[in-house]
Amino acid sequence: MSFAREQVHNFAAGPSPLPTPVLEKAAVGLLNYNGTGMGVCELSHRSKEFKGIIEGAEANLRKLYGVPDNYSILFAQGGGTTQFASVMLNILAARRIQHKDDKEYAVPTIDYVVTGSWSSKAYAEAQRLALPPAPGAQPFAAPRIAATAKPSKFTTLPKQDEYDFSADAAYVYYCENETINGTEFPAADAPSEFSFPFDKVPAGVPVVADYSSSFVSRPIANFDKHAIIVAGAQKNLGPSGVTVVIVRNDLLVDTTEAMKLGNIPAVPIQSEYKTLADNGSLYNTPPTFPIYVSALVLEYLVAERDGMKGIEATNRAKAETLYAALDAAEAKGTVRCVVREKLARSWMNITFEIVGEGKEKAFLDGAEALGFRQLKGHRSVGGIRASLYNAVTLESVKALAEYISNF
Amino acid sequence: MSFAREQVHNFAAGPSPLPTPVLEKAAVGLLNYNGTGMGVCELSHRSKEFKGIIEGAEANLRKLYGVPDNYSILFAQGGGTTQFASVMLNILAARRIQHKDDKEYAVPTIDYVVTGSWSSKAYAEAQRLALPPAPGAQPFAAPRIAATAKPSKFTTLPKQDEYDFSADAAYVYYCENETINGTEFPAADAPSEFSFPFDKVPAGVPVVADYSSSFVSRPIANFDKHAIIVAGAQKNLGPSGVTVVIVRNDLLVDTTEAMKLGNIPAVPIQSEYKTLADNGSLYNTPPTFPIYVSALVLEYLVAERDGMKGIEATNRAKAETLYAALDAAEAKGTVRCVVREKLARSWMNITFEIVGEGKEKAFLDGAEALGFRQLKGHRSVGGIRASLYNAVTLESVKALAEYISNF
Repeated sequence: MSFAREQVHNFAAGPSPLPTPVLEKAAVGLLNYNGTGMGVCELSHRSKEFKGIIEGAEANLRKLYGVPDNYSILFAQGGGTTQFASVMLNILAARRIQHKDDKEYAVPTIDYVVTGSWSSKAYAEAQRLALPPAPGAQPFAAPRIAATAKPSKFTTLPKQDEYDFSADAAYVYYCENETINGTEFPAADAPSEFSFPFDKVPAGVPVVADYSSSFVSRPIANFDKHAIIVAGAQKNLGPSGVTVVIVRNDLLVDTTEAMKLGNIPAVPIQSEYKTLADNGSLYNTPPTFPIYVSALVLEYLVAERDGMKGIEATNRAKAETLYAALDAAEAKGTVRCVVREKLARSWMNITFEIVGEGKEKAFLDGAEALGFRQLKGHRSVGGIRASLYNAVTLESVKALAEYISNF
Repeated sequence: MSFAREQVHNFAAGPSPLPTPVLEKAAVGLLNYNGTGMGVCELSHRSKEFKGIIEGAEANLRKLYGVPDNYSILFAQGGGTTQFASVMLNILAARRIQHKDDKEYAVPTIDYVVTGSWSSKAYAEAQRLALPPAPGAQPFAAPRIAATAKPSKFTTLPKQDEYDFSADAAYVYYCENETINGTEFPAADAPSEFSFPFDKVPAGVPVVADYSSSFVSRPIANFDKHAIIVAGAQKNLGPSGVTVVIVRNDLLVDTTEAMKLGNIPAVPIQSEYKTLADNGSLYNTPPTFPIYVSALVLEYLVAERDGMKGIEATNRAKAETLYAALDAAEAKGTVRCVVREKLARSWMNITFEIVGEGKEKAFLDGAEALGFRQLKGHRSVGGIRASLYNAVTLESVKALAEYISNF
């Protein structure tokens, strides 16, 4: 068996690189977990060994973020795309139960903040699931756009005064980091005119955030003002196949009870957060290996990066290094940053274009020869995208910055 | 790094053992896939490398089963439990489109064959999702029981004359192998009074089968009489986290179109088979590692076991060996087989009880000392369960048979 990892710089947008020490440990666990003589994929998900793994992952997540006690942490399947539906179904169920004594159930609005490809998809899914169950019947909900960056082609974020929240929405939804477009709401310690305007959300309206591509990359701004935070693992946390859902406990409701009251879309049992929470994410067989590797990554982050402060410092340095090189190259006329407002730029997914006919291919070919991998932009937008997730080292970023400067 | 696998005999019901050569290969791929310098979890799911993996898995599945061209093979997330909903949602959508010109849409029946814990759960999920969308509205469907083995406490299967199919059901559903109870419909080459009565299903009614725990263990009886076959990977195929869906192409329909017609439950986009099929199972990020290991298992089965015939021969020998030992021990009075009808017994999950006060603990303690692992029955039924999936060797089964004979 040869495990040598050639020296490559992997800037994949997800699935993304994982720390080498984690993969080395996982390779051992794959064949023989903790001396049991059985590999980690061969253990019952109800064994004490696997329970130790999943509980360890939860404990480290709680530690890293300081997750308050009134939130549950769930490990779900299906990716962020499945959560587009799940957040809607669970919140509408909770709202229906709250309004169980209403003579007529008023169709609730849902406020979407649309800042790029992923929040657009979430909004489209809400529109589908809100469709009336029969011609002429009332729809299950009325999704609407509370703010959008679409006029800029998603190259910036809305400013504070561009938000128009409805008075009694079922929830407000936003995507903290748009992986494809390269925008991200400002860091917790650097609020600006582009920050998410929590103070404008009417009291009592739950706020839902998709943190898939910035999860465990730095502290979450206003953590306790969120009702639900969802994140696919395959960026900063682990392999693909598991999605973390952090949900305030008042949204863990019996969806069957809500369905019996009527006026909400049908909720597949697998989407019910209460069922997942009641069963410690083991209602049915979970994706044990992706959870195992995520648990190892969390251990590594806690031990090797001095927790969230260390993670944040590293990621800030990486982003600053690459943007500085890009801004200098843009001044020389060789590249163009896609996100024009500096305060709206993502630390995680840095999008840019190579100026000049045929130059993009030359850039990518040259990059490939130097060991830079997976730099091509998403097929829907083109250009270049460098993703700087946790396992990408500052050294790799410096090497890329140098290549850009010399190009 | 130490990869030594202590000599244990793992009889887990799932997640279950995997072939050692597969795990050794996967450990290499985890760190460096095919010399790319990147681990398999670090590759884009849209890379040519990962496309090669998933297409190879599909090709080998088609080869093993001789899957006809008018079926698609999907790799889905969420486990078999998610498929309880997905099969219902897609078939109801297809039926709704077929009936789009009906002035009034008649509530369709759905026929469930209930033979154990898993088919009971599938039926319960159908009842939930069929609930009317508003008080007084018509339900989306009328699930009913077409046959059941419940009076026997699921220790046998219904006989041919116990089936009562409705004339125009949306579909008929059965679970081929009940993992918890230990029953299985007879093998393709050994039809009996317990076989699934395909000839009694009214023409045109789609048949859906849950093959989770017997998938790729032997040929599927009457493959082409099924409309959908679903199977969680974590038994004979691979690690947990991926579910195979083999679906006849006429059931790949635009669920949004059906929802607009009304009278069907809302369908989360992730559950839409057409979307998965149109995108080669890459609509969103799939669970890449579970798919990778499943692909390696399929390669191994094709190469090392001489395809389905070899797999079947090995599994037949394993089951016959263990049942022979159990029947002999039952004659001596030390054990009792749970499934009383021999023709209804599972090859995969062999359930029995140890006779005598305190003897079960002695049996399990003695087994543990000899290296037998994960023999405890499911917590809902108790007793002993030995699962003999593909990666369990005949040698392990002979060792267990000897232990039972000497107990």
